[in-house]
Amino acid sequence: MFTIPELNQQLDAEIQHCLNNKTKPLGSLGRLESIALQICRIQQTLKPCLSQPQMLVFAADHGVVAEGISLFPQAVTQQMVLNFIQGGAAINCFCRQHGIEFRVVNAGVNGELPEDSILIDASIAKGTQNFVTQPAMTMEQCEQALTKGAELVDDRHKRGANVIGFGEMGIGNTTSAAALMAAALGLSAAECAGRGTGLEKTAVEHKAKVIQKALKRIKGEKLSPQQMLAELGGFEIVMMCGAMLKAAELKMLVLVDGFIATSAALMASKMHPNFIDYAVFCHKSKEQGHKKMLKAMGVEALLDLDMRLGEGSGVAVAYPLLVSAVTFVNEMASFDSAGVDNA
Amino acid sequence: MFTIPELNQQLDAEIQHCLNNKTKPLGSLGRLESIALQICRIQQTLKPCLSQPQMLVFAADHGVVAEGISLFPQAVTQQMVLNFIQGGAAINCFCRQHGIEFRVVNAGVNGELPEDSILIDASIAKGTQNFVTQPAMTMEQCEQALTKGAELVDDRHKRGANVIGFGEMGIGNTTSAAALMAAALGLSAAECAGRGTGLEKTAVEHKAKVIQKALKRIKGEKLSPQQMLAELGGFEIVMMCGAMLKAAELKMLVLVDGFIATSAALMASKMHPNFIDYAVFCHKSKEQGHKKMLKAMGVEALLDLDMRLGEGSGVAVAYPLLVSAVTFVNEMASFDSAGVDNA
Repeated sequence: MFTIPELNQQLDAEIQHCLNNKTKPLGSLGRLESIALQICRIQQTLKPCLSQPQMLVFAADHGVVAEGISLFPQAVTQQMVLNFIQGGAAINCFCRQHGIEFRVVNAGVNGELPEDSILIDASIAKGTQNFVTQPAMTMEQCEQALTKGAELVDDRHKRGANVIGFGEMGIGNTTSAAALMAAALGLSAAECAGRGTGLEKTAVEHKAKVIQKALKRIKGEKLSPQQMLAELGGFEIVMMCGAMLKAAELKMLVLVDGFIATSAALMASKMHPNFIDYAVFCHKSKEQGHKKMLKAMGVEALLDLDMRLGEGSGVAVAYPLLVSAVTFVNEMASFDSAGVDNA
Repeated sequence: MFTIPELNQQLDAEIQHCLNNKTKPLGSLGRLESIALQICRIQQTLKPCLSQPQMLVFAADHGVVAEGISLFPQAVTQQMVLNFIQGGAAINCFCRQHGIEFRVVNAGVNGELPEDSILIDASIAKGTQNFVTQPAMTMEQCEQALTKGAELVDDRHKRGANVIGFGEMGIGNTTSAAALMAAALGLSAAECAGRGTGLEKTAVEHKAKVIQKALKRIKGEKLSPQQMLAELGGFEIVMMCGAMLKAAELKMLVLVDGFIATSAALMASKMHPNFIDYAVFCHKSKEQGHKKMLKAMGVEALLDLDMRLGEGSGVAVAYPLLVSAVTFVNEMASFDSAGVDNA
């Protein structure tokens, strides 16, 4: 469905030489240097730039809330989308701070939403089915969500963006993300279920049991990543997955938020392993499963600020670090140009 | 010498109520929330702001370079100051990126420097003495450096700044910082000496031996923090220490960079324990001793990006996170104002 080539390493030596000759001890900018290398590779240049940064927050509802797995009522998904439209959520503040263009996508919210320039209507249905007893969505809906996500990114790309962040909102969606993680990595539900918006221990155990039932329902079948998405996903997760894959195909830098966005990235990497080369995992969530997902993909998150909010908040607060990575490549003097002795 | 009161906790309940009622799961902005609380406390307000952010980078030379403890020749201190003036160093790039006003302070560089609006001449002497064989500086010089640092901060404060970052440049200064750390925390040199700009294992061992000799020289004496600074310090470290203490006295937010800046903060906290309440430790350096110093002060760094550059670079790249902390307090909707159901 997507064509994601391996990153071209032809410029690597030149890029590394450029980084090594900046006026600083070798490698002393740490993660900023590895990110600079990644961006230069993706863009195949020694003059990287980040253009028209975008944030897409995908919102949807989840049938599995019927199992009582969230602290918040389902209505909060719709209410938070209205909050995004009005500009009062955390992600709005952080996007304004950094000049990131923000859109919220209705991927499948169970409620009415107004027309607004901030809101993109891409609703597949008014929430998924309860995946404990049946597939969350049909394979057609899953395909439709992947395609729609790709289209939205294509549109952002046409407007000149080469960097895009992904976040989400959906009451119940840590349960869907944990179920996908368990299925994709062959782990037990208990290893994947976490506190979500703030569950206590017994509530987390209940959540794990709910997920375990769903895993039992689909057990024995050898599922493709796309089938797993249809069985256990949410519309926001599936649409994000399609969006991420398209962004990589377009050689955009893909900025991944916390636990739920990472579950979409995990499924993307199962479909197209080269996807990971285009992604920066911006923040390690407090949600317990996140660390394991990152490890399974062989990646490390950039920030660890004890956040667990979602909405793309981890991407937005990390964004200036990506700008720093690009800035030092373009603006720092070299030992030669500054007349500084090298070691 | 300085008067640094305990932070007033009278507003704490109101501040916490404000943070808890923003439209997000309780505590889900993690470290940004604790920093928001800290800034609101320092400023005694529910409407915090960061005004006219400043960066002072203190530069000086070290007599202990005679022991062969650095990869780079001493001339690099002067060369890098020229690079700062020309705007080509990492810290220049990051300060420009975030609108942080930048000044480099000649605290005691061993070389000629031009007059320039970016450079503040506060030189105590052309480098310290070799502290292996004698005190690095006299008590008078030490006092002079502390006072000068305080004056520079007072000047920045009068221009309207309420937030100030501190960084440093000085070939050999990880050796001085490690020696101060060992003396102040009662540790062996081997526990404190690290790779600096990139030393290999045997060179680090040599560095530890050099420090151990200095510790032996001053052993048995019960030294005050100020005496330790005179015995083992560098002019940039002592001046930073005075600057940090004055900034706390003026109720400014104090942004501390990596290993060397933290050694100045450690000495500041030994003189005035309340100092720590005004400080944010911005980045955990790869330099091995840094983690131990932070732990000894009971603080955690905000970022961990494998950086080990100094120059205030860790402060500058962390600065947008402090702005995010202030921004969410001022701009996020509450559950009530946005009509979102709370858990």
